[in-house]
Amino acid sequence: MSFLAIDLGGTKLALALFTGEGEILKKEILPIDKREGSQVGGLILEKISDFLEYGNSTGNKIKAIGVSIPGIFRSATGTIWAPSIKGWDDYPLLKEIKDFVGDIPVKIDNDRACYILGEVWKGNARGCNDAIFLSVGTGIGAGILINGDILQGSSDISGCIGWMSMLVPFKKEFTECGCFEYFASGTGIARMAKAALAEDSENSTILSTLVLDDITSHDVFDAYKKGDKIAVAVISQCVEFWGVAVANLVSLFNPEKIIFGGGVFGPALPLLPDIYNEALKWAQPVSIKDVELTGSQLLGDAGLYGAGYLAIKESLKSSFVKRKNY
Amino acid sequence: MSFLAIDLGGTKLALALFTGEGEILKKEILPIDKREGSQVGGLILEKISDFLEYGNSTGNKIKAIGVSIPGIFRSATGTIWAPSIKGWDDYPLLKEIKDFVGDIPVKIDNDRACYILGEVWKGNARGCNDAIFLSVGTGIGAGILINGDILQGSSDISGCIGWMSMLVPFKKEFTECGCFEYFASGTGIARMAKAALAEDSENSTILSTLVLDDITSHDVFDAYKKGDKIAVAVISQCVEFWGVAVANLVSLFNPEKIIFGGGVFGPALPLLPDIYNEALKWAQPVSIKDVELTGSQLLGDAGLYGAGYLAIKESLKSSFVKRKNY
Repeated sequence: MSFLAIDLGGTKLALALFTGEGEILKKEILPIDKREGSQVGGLILEKISDFLEYGNSTGNKIKAIGVSIPGIFRSATGTIWAPSIKGWDDYPLLKEIKDFVGDIPVKIDNDRACYILGEVWKGNARGCNDAIFLSVGTGIGAGILINGDILQGSSDISGCIGWMSMLVPFKKEFTECGCFEYFASGTGIARMAKAALAEDSENSTILSTLVLDDITSHDVFDAYKKGDKIAVAVISQCVEFWGVAVANLVSLFNPEKIIFGGGVFGPALPLLPDIYNEALKWAQPVSIKDVELTGSQLLGDAGLYGAGYLAIKESLKSSFVKRKNY
Repeated sequence: MSFLAIDLGGTKLALALFTGEGEILKKEILPIDKREGSQVGGLILEKISDFLEYGNSTGNKIKAIGVSIPGIFRSATGTIWAPSIKGWDDYPLLKEIKDFVGDIPVKIDNDRACYILGEVWKGNARGCNDAIFLSVGTGIGAGILINGDILQGSSDISGCIGWMSMLVPFKKEFTECGCFEYFASGTGIARMAKAALAEDSENSTILSTLVLDDITSHDVFDAYKKGDKIAVAVISQCVEFWGVAVANLVSLFNPEKIIFGGGVFGPALPLLPDIYNEALKWAQPVSIKDVELTGSQLLGDAGLYGAGYLAIKESLKSSFVKRKNY
């Protein structure tokens, strides 16, 4: 008996066959390359076929399938909006997989939800009922667990914390991605550093030696560690925004843990104590004492583990429903 | 058969005997006066006694009791922290009531939670699974319903949206009550108007004729309607903050409805379209289209109806548990 986890990203597809205890029996990661639309769906079905066969031939029959997708899973229609995959505005992935696998239960959820589920199952949120995964990479999103269940929202678009406002008044620059993401995502870090350098590069000893247009958030972190003044100013501003995000999550949700992940955490992990101190200024004073900030344990595998846990939960639900029907 | 609802406020105690359909059989409101500590508990027990007798004598036996309290109900200990009632730092109200009423089920929750439950039962959130009550009065708080259940948080302190940060950097003025509440509560409105008048009263034709120290948020709204420039500036700033609050709630929770209540909504209700337009700039662009902003239908009775609904839910839960035990 096994559970198939599928983690679809914008550029790669990862699959893993889990035991019920979370041991990985087989794992595969492959690039999506230039595939778009139904070619991506086709690749997923092809790989499911491989894993089904592997499961059967090794006596680990697949009992359920969980899928993490990089966008919005519309539960009412079973379709997906994934901006990083061309042609996936309303892609009928659930139906495609169900038609292909017959009566094996299938569950799809967005990557933010899967990150926190993964950490609950096998990562740093084990034992938590109320925990949040704050993913800071190119974009920013939050997977929110409330009383053991994922916060879905009325139309499956919860946790879009990149849109959080932290600095009135509104600027038109926030229109594309939201205020928090504009400043404090990986993209935002590079953007802020470039803007500061364009204005005054004399204050910078390291970043100013790089080609301006090529600067990434990782360059900014490297320069920050070496004391580059512009990098220090940009990262300090991000610490303020991340602290405010923690404070606002704590005041609203009163979680046990906030888990930081994504490409930026990573290099920003040593800043967690500073982020907590910033949050301490802003947040509801009792609940900020009840929260722990920590990094992701599963890192790039959080979505895959989350998809595995989705599969297990769906399998339990499905067998419960079946039993009720008899 | 009936359900007793108790709504304890900072200055008054309201009780109502509901039928299961939400009809009020008997209602009473009385001042707390100078009572403190166990005197307030004693008053509640005295009134419960009256209502129990009334229920029995009229053939409407009380089946369950729901209580709304102005603070934090600590579910782990059954005790209450209510800053507006002297001596209620950790008051054992649940035990007191249970000891008094024997095997009648009793459920306590905070006022924010009861407001949204009331609106779900008999107000403007009927039929909603995901809805938020934003209460703006002396303070600011939010009652948050997710998938039909109240968001409680890991230590029962969720929905403290008054602490939401909307304007970095931190100022020490936010320490007492939080950034959002500092600017956009009833207290905040009066404070902002007084500060603006102290700086430049020439711009004001109405507020400047009042005694500065006595100005309330209601004075500011009256002056706003008559075009007083300082009042217009203060209320416009509040619209911005309320819009940001809506945007942040929408981006995180993706609710169907946000219900505005409390003393300020009230006079600020005609501003809901402006608040929505401000939110539209900031929020996740899909989910902001899915939300409706509306005023409370139950107004000052929202907490009482919520307590009634708490009682009904507790009675159902309790009879379900009993049946399972047999």
